[in-house]
Amino acid sequence: MEIIKEEKFDSFKSLNSAGIVKTKHYTFAFPPDELVLCSGEKLGPITIAYETYGVLNKNKDNAILIFHALSGDAHAAGYHNEKDRKPGWWDIMVGPQKPFNTEKYFVICVNVIGGCKGSTGPSSINPQTKKPYALSFPVLSIKDMIIPQKILLDYLGIEKLLCIAGGSMGGMQALQWLVTYPEASKGAMIIATAAVHSAQEIAFNSIGRYAIVSDPNWQNGNYYNSSVKKPDIGLSIARMIGHITYLSEKAMHQKFGRNIINNRSKFINGLPKSSGEVSGEKKLKKYKSNGTTDFTKEFEVESYLQHQGESFIKRFDANSYLYITKAIDDFDITKGYENLTDALKNVRAKCLVMSFTSDWLYPKEQSLKIVKALKINGIDTTYTNLETPYGHDSFLINDDRIKRIFTGFLKSLEE
Amino acid sequence: MEIIKEEKFDSFKSLNSAGIVKTKHYTFAFPPDELVLCSGEKLGPITIAYETYGVLNKNKDNAILIFHALSGDAHAAGYHNEKDRKPGWWDIMVGPQKPFNTEKYFVICVNVIGGCKGSTGPSSINPQTKKPYALSFPVLSIKDMIIPQKILLDYLGIEKLLCIAGGSMGGMQALQWLVTYPEASKGAMIIATAAVHSAQEIAFNSIGRYAIVSDPNWQNGNYYNSSVKKPDIGLSIARMIGHITYLSEKAMHQKFGRNIINNRSKFINGLPKSSGEVSGEKKLKKYKSNGTTDFTKEFEVESYLQHQGESFIKRFDANSYLYITKAIDDFDITKGYENLTDALKNVRAKCLVMSFTSDWLYPKEQSLKIVKALKINGIDTTYTNLETPYGHDSFLINDDRIKRIFTGFLKSLEE
Repeated sequence: MEIIKEEKFDSFKSLNSAGIVKTKHYTFAFPPDELVLCSGEKLGPITIAYETYGVLNKNKDNAILIFHALSGDAHAAGYHNEKDRKPGWWDIMVGPQKPFNTEKYFVICVNVIGGCKGSTGPSSINPQTKKPYALSFPVLSIKDMIIPQKILLDYLGIEKLLCIAGGSMGGMQALQWLVTYPEASKGAMIIATAAVHSAQEIAFNSIGRYAIVSDPNWQNGNYYNSSVKKPDIGLSIARMIGHITYLSEKAMHQKFGRNIINNRSKFINGLPKSSGEVSGEKKLKKYKSNGTTDFTKEFEVESYLQHQGESFIKRFDANSYLYITKAIDDFDITKGYENLTDALKNVRAKCLVMSFTSDWLYPKEQSLKIVKALKINGIDTTYTNLETPYGHDSFLINDDRIKRIFTGFLKSLEE
Repeated sequence: MEIIKEEKFDSFKSLNSAGIVKTKHYTFAFPPDELVLCSGEKLGPITIAYETYGVLNKNKDNAILIFHALSGDAHAAGYHNEKDRKPGWWDIMVGPQKPFNTEKYFVICVNVIGGCKGSTGPSSINPQTKKPYALSFPVLSIKDMIIPQKILLDYLGIEKLLCIAGGSMGGMQALQWLVTYPEASKGAMIIATAAVHSAQEIAFNSIGRYAIVSDPNWQNGNYYNSSVKKPDIGLSIARMIGHITYLSEKAMHQKFGRNIINNRSKFINGLPKSSGEVSGEKKLKKYKSNGTTDFTKEFEVESYLQHQGESFIKRFDANSYLYITKAIDDFDITKGYENLTDALKNVRAKCLVMSFTSDWLYPKEQSLKIVKALKINGIDTTYTNLETPYGHDSFLINDDRIKRIFTGFLKSLEE
């Protein structure tokens, strides 16, 4: 999940930035009181990385918990230092006068366990062995991700949240909160997600995992020694596949069309295409240089995807990718229940469900199932299927309509 | 492109099989008269593998040329021997009393150059070096694929075809025939394809190519020595990605849902799901055996995709996959013309354009552009957007409606 439009540098000094923020850590579940996961396995001690924005009020009733998606982290807003040019992943939504208005609300974001951004995950050192967990890290579920969040809230003294909110895997965490802790939040925003992960969604994630575990450098997960290579190619491929699914066909067309790398002005922007077949022939030769044909570097869309893959391997751990996508694929909130309505029968929060017309990965039908189940249970539910061209990642785009809907929904929770 | 529903063994003795057929070969373009390709490079001698079904009549006006898709070959119908249990790739459509009725028509199918099923391609021996071409094989275009087909027709003494027909990359060949040889066929069937390959279509193919060229065993294309490993993992990944795009989300859901490997009866078919969270917990443990988590072998859809990948590497050459997908991605029939209408201005054939509601890879909008351009040019054009659940591969499915449309269209060409 990546913001498609490049965010302009939004100075932390400006009025609507959360400013300079710091990632905090909280450690719990020390042996012999380890956390028992859904798999039955134990994990502890557990450290979670989290950030907070704004001030918790005296009544402790202005707290909002936001959940990140697959590749996100605790750094949702603001900057880590003065030189930091890239704000947190949901900076468009979190800050003073923004929908998650940090002048009014106390916003919390926690890196999921299994991740690689400060919370305990497969790349963390196992205190028992003094080595990275790697594949000895236990199998995770979405439920396993939210329990540490609840433990953090208890530590912070927050009994009831004003709202929980997340898109994609963040939406799954929101749904799991509604089921596991039905009294813990007044409101919930469930965005671009599914209550039950579908075959096609599993298929895309699975090929990504297959690419990682097939990379010779994966070495059964034991690649943390600095002297060995990492499964960069496998993780790149996984990320590239993911990126196609986060965009829409239309957005890809608008962004790249059939533009040629380093030859943009020649091939688009209204310049003559009707220069005869010769130009086409020249083009075919173009990507054959030094006698070798390059099969992956002609079109801009190829360059874009490879760039996404290459930048991802610098910031993400391949084993975390395996564990987190597996938790996503295993997600089925109806498990242990008759059906979705039964699963959501104890929900008490007011709900906002949002899908996007161009999101073909999590199509509106999946959101509508959630809406239907909530409505049958008599839950006050608002549903919006927003017309956007950006695909699944639409919730990460700076869109005034989304901002207005979020702002209005949060306001309605204060009443 | 794969037939989704398993074809029942259709004995070659039965009335509607093309029977035992043999792949033939024709070699031409001997030096110094090599074929000059669109890239300007020369290729020769060229061998093409082809099959024919039925009998060419005296007037030589009952010939139909059909084009295969990315992973197809010349073997469109019938069986290669009595033990052969799998018929040709379009056997449902080609044979006695079938739409391409071999009692009436003389049907020809040619393996494209660049392929690996008998026609000259990167795995063929370069007569000059006595070694496989590998990456010294010239860059190909869809136009380069059809010129050898025309040379074959000249050799067979066929001046004018009754019809040309193909789906996916086969549809691109049909479009290219209409442009390059506008007088060569009375009719054309253009199925599930595009006149200009889109950014999303390029993206999927490109990640497949990236997986191949990133496989350490690819070795810059020089893996033909039997003592070295082939880029099987890369080619598998490419095929797995392709397979998701050939199916629809709905077809995947219907075929696999969230079924678990080897545990089907336990998890679906109406058996109780409401056995409490414990069953969910047990399931999470299931795919962790011998202390190692398996991240790619829990769901049936994962097993299906891996099987598709593994069976593909036995029958297809990775370098052919690179060259052919690159030709597909480079396909833009408007190249050298003002627009699509201009490109199709010389078309004289009666046209049938077909798309499928569930085909998200080549959505109906792409077919409609072709239809519009043909109509503006005053071409007698029939368009059908057929409601199917099977996605892009729908044209390979045994569907009576498709058969009726094909039969009717061919009959109309005889008038």
